[in-house]
Amino acid sequence: MVGKKSMRINYPSSEKVYIPGEINKIQVGMRKIKLHDTVTVDRNGEKVFKKNNPVIVYDTSGPFSDPKIPIDINKGIPRIRESWYGRRKEVIQLPELSSEYGRMRLADPALESIRFPKLHSPLRAKEGKNITQMYYAKKRIITPEMEYVAIRENQQIEVLGLKSYITPDFVRKEIAAGRAIIPANINHPEAEPMIIGRKFLVKINTNIGNSALSSGIGEEIEKALWSYKWGGDTLMDLSTGNNIHETREWIIRNCPVPMGTVPIYQALEKVNGSVADLSWEIYRDTLIEQAEQGVDYFTIHAGLLQKHVELTRTRLTGIVSRGGSIMSKWMQIHQEENFLYTHFSEICEILKTYDVAVSIGDGLRPGSIYDANDAAQFAELYTMGELTKVAWDQFVQVIIEGPGHVPMNKIQTNMKEQQYACYGASFYTLGPLTTDIAPGYDHITSAIGAAWIAWQGTAMICYVTPKEHLGLPNKEDVRNGVIAYKIAAHAADLAKGHPGAQVRDNALSKARFEFRWKDQFDLSLDPDRAMQYYKESSVSDGGYCTMCGPNFCAMRLSKSLHDKCTD
Amino acid sequence: MVGKKSMRINYPSSEKVYIPGEINKIQVGMRKIKLHDTVTVDRNGEKVFKKNNPVIVYDTSGPFSDPKIPIDINKGIPRIRESWYGRRKEVIQLPELSSEYGRMRLADPALESIRFPKLHSPLRAKEGKNITQMYYAKKRIITPEMEYVAIRENQQIEVLGLKSYITPDFVRKEIAAGRAIIPANINHPEAEPMIIGRKFLVKINTNIGNSALSSGIGEEIEKALWSYKWGGDTLMDLSTGNNIHETREWIIRNCPVPMGTVPIYQALEKVNGSVADLSWEIYRDTLIEQAEQGVDYFTIHAGLLQKHVELTRTRLTGIVSRGGSIMSKWMQIHQEENFLYTHFSEICEILKTYDVAVSIGDGLRPGSIYDANDAAQFAELYTMGELTKVAWDQFVQVIIEGPGHVPMNKIQTNMKEQQYACYGASFYTLGPLTTDIAPGYDHITSAIGAAWIAWQGTAMICYVTPKEHLGLPNKEDVRNGVIAYKIAAHAADLAKGHPGAQVRDNALSKARFEFRWKDQFDLSLDPDRAMQYYKESSVSDGGYCTMCGPNFCAMRLSKSLHDKCTD
Repeated sequence: MVGKKSMRINYPSSEKVYIPGEINKIQVGMRKIKLHDTVTVDRNGEKVFKKNNPVIVYDTSGPFSDPKIPIDINKGIPRIRESWYGRRKEVIQLPELSSEYGRMRLADPALESIRFPKLHSPLRAKEGKNITQMYYAKKRIITPEMEYVAIRENQQIEVLGLKSYITPDFVRKEIAAGRAIIPANINHPEAEPMIIGRKFLVKINTNIGNSALSSGIGEEIEKALWSYKWGGDTLMDLSTGNNIHETREWIIRNCPVPMGTVPIYQALEKVNGSVADLSWEIYRDTLIEQAEQGVDYFTIHAGLLQKHVELTRTRLTGIVSRGGSIMSKWMQIHQEENFLYTHFSEICEILKTYDVAVSIGDGLRPGSIYDANDAAQFAELYTMGELTKVAWDQFVQVIIEGPGHVPMNKIQTNMKEQQYACYGASFYTLGPLTTDIAPGYDHITSAIGAAWIAWQGTAMICYVTPKEHLGLPNKEDVRNGVIAYKIAAHAADLAKGHPGAQVRDNALSKARFEFRWKDQFDLSLDPDRAMQYYKESSVSDGGYCTMCGPNFCAMRLSKSLHDKCTD
Repeated sequence: MVGKKSMRINYPSSEKVYIPGEINKIQVGMRKIKLHDTVTVDRNGEKVFKKNNPVIVYDTSGPFSDPKIPIDINKGIPRIRESWYGRRKEVIQLPELSSEYGRMRLADPALESIRFPKLHSPLRAKEGKNITQMYYAKKRIITPEMEYVAIRENQQIEVLGLKSYITPDFVRKEIAAGRAIIPANINHPEAEPMIIGRKFLVKINTNIGNSALSSGIGEEIEKALWSYKWGGDTLMDLSTGNNIHETREWIIRNCPVPMGTVPIYQALEKVNGSVADLSWEIYRDTLIEQAEQGVDYFTIHAGLLQKHVELTRTRLTGIVSRGGSIMSKWMQIHQEENFLYTHFSEICEILKTYDVAVSIGDGLRPGSIYDANDAAQFAELYTMGELTKVAWDQFVQVIIEGPGHVPMNKIQTNMKEQQYACYGASFYTLGPLTTDIAPGYDHITSAIGAAWIAWQGTAMICYVTPKEHLGLPNKEDVRNGVIAYKIAAHAADLAKGHPGAQVRDNALSKARFEFRWKDQFDLSLDPDRAMQYYKESSVSDGGYCTMCGPNFCAMRLSKSLHDKCTD
């Protein structure tokens, strides 16, 4: 059913290393890239070898890149966080699934062949208990997740003998203040904790998911692996096709990064695509169903109100968010307020039970340069701010979704308004695309906007693939989208001065200048492609490339200059 | 020898149109994209058709996209500007080539088979006359070139019934002030005038050129055509291989955009790659040789002095500019000051004779994030400013080259320092790349930086292809590089609020919202690719795409919302 049982992620010249926690019994997996020596020739013509320190980089590939861990996707990856909850008295294991739909699917024998083989009984908070990271943070408790991300964020900085400001307690404070979240559903113990907040590394989200028109479970898992490999920090499953429930289970059980969903999509599938038939009850059951599977954050378009829809009438491209258009239609049909808004407090009750974070969706994000920063967009944003307070009252972790299509000169305003309207909650934007005129290249139009808004403080950027506006991405599109966004995120990390962010750039540039080609490729975001391009055109001895040829290699000339100078 | 005799550029649903001048007898070629009607259904179920205005866009493809003009690359494209000089009493036609090297190549019978068939006698200014656009501008003369670019820049704005601030006299003033240039060698009458200046559309340069390791004449011409097709505004021929002189002649005679070169490359080839043997005499002859062929601007690394080289010793990646490394080596060998600096006034004497513009090269541009904005870079920049004044004294048009590798947070400083140091002369940057860690994707790392610096006022951005640092670009790389830079330039034009820049975005977004797929593709920067991606995954009826499928198409839902509202 689901393709190869064993799937691996390989990085060249890399080793999986684990950095232990000091407060908690945790092991933070990182990737160590080993480098070759620098070789020079001394005055006597003897070769001199000088060591280059390995570079340790952030690693989203989880156990897939550790050859010591057996991988069988029919069993799922190790549940590393399971033992962390053991100590917590606030959690109980349920005898059966709480959602009607979940039980129905489990009872259906026809689904046997596509069901994930092992059922894990869900966990939830005990009655009256709060178990969210925000709650603990406010109680001044440093959870294992907090220490984990503190170690993970610091990368190379300690190798340099420097201390980073990112300590476990710093992480705790940021979460307590609502300026950062750790999406970590207690039912997704396979996920390695990561943090989303403006004072941390910029994260990228990748989307996968089938639609009515495409792709089965095996294909989705392959795309997911592709995302972990290239550096996707979180994974949203936007499936709208068949067997969403079962597909999601497979992915989550093999997913080392937090997973997000837009529950209204599945709710709509449950009523066969008929918006009129959507109801709070169906939606509520969907939240519980997904929360017990382990979804770490939900996109919920609760900030879109009846009065806002009117504001879109003068737009060029109306409502381009799927969730936003669904809820608008529902409000129009029923002439009632958005049930996600009216039931938001109950939604938070459910979320806190599993520590699911909420990503408040911007149903009115602009779909064109023309519509950017208009009244509809900002009206909704302020409602999103109001809902942030509602969620925080229950210690539910919050991020805020943002646009969309925005010209560069209007990007900073988005960031400032969002921080003001939403009390400093983390911003999570889709791009934004800085022009409308390049379908087929929207990973680039949006990487420009994403880099710029991330530098201004957006904590996570949602990738866009070259197929945006045109069709569903394939594996190669996923790769191109992820790398474009890793570039945008890293460019922002450099600009923000994230501790140690530049270590990798320096190591790569040093390798480049010393013609250590292999090291240059191994340190790059996509070693395979760099190597491929080099080989395609290479007829050189390694002391130059075909771009300039031997006589015109500036670095070769420049090196000879320095060599002479020091002799 | 050179492949197909006839080469054409086709754009879908497009027509070549010409807008006549009011002051001069000129015809400005533009591309008119025809759109389909918007079709809606009224209360009675009748279809209602509503016209969509065609969109007129800037066109760099010259006669290649006009089916009415016969193209034979063995004859060269029409010499549209030839008659413009006829009226000028300040120009004379020479009986033979002035450069020794040019005469030598012409006399060599072995080159017969690769020589461009038709020889045009070169033009030059009469003794004691100045014929540069800057000179005329200061004399308050509006040249045909100035009127041409004023019409060309305004695109769609007049269709909207608006008047742009970009009038012929505005163009003149900007050129007189040194804030803009029109690179237009009188020996390159095939070139359609274009303007490089911060108050105009952001331009992009593309590089082609063989190296010792690759490509013949036919291949270079094909790459050049590819550049015009996708929107390259100028073309630099960076050839360093064989038969540079003859290759260049073929390209220039078929080149509707200004061409730039780095003459030191060819000078070095003339001394068989031996830097020690470079001399002012060889370089001088090369300048004249190329100027009489019609090169429109020369990159000259004259700002790099002996004292600056010392400042690069603490760099991570030394000197990465080819020209910079060559001149540094020369200075080291001869223990003399850079002859491009010491002879700069004589260089300008030559340049003004043909109205070749100078692009003062930044030999010390940073080659890594680590080296960005360092003492070496800025020391050279101030010398470049000094040289700007020297050139302006002779009314030679000047642009200033910039980096390179620069993190986002240091980009704005580059722009400000350049404007201050160089008295407002136009900035022309290579990217900059905003991180070092993505070889294979440097069109993206640099498009981010290019968009940002162009918004801040950089007038022209030099493209970077995915093969940067790895090898010579092929045709597909050229396409990807050009489109990435068209995106960056257009994003900056939108952010700067260039008159009418948003017309194309609006038209495309309207087409998108109305499911006029074909119009959407025709309006895009790369219609072929957009269409290809759409078709790859399309199984739809045209009312949605495979990205979301029918039930989840936000635009479809949103439209139904509006339709209801207006009924």
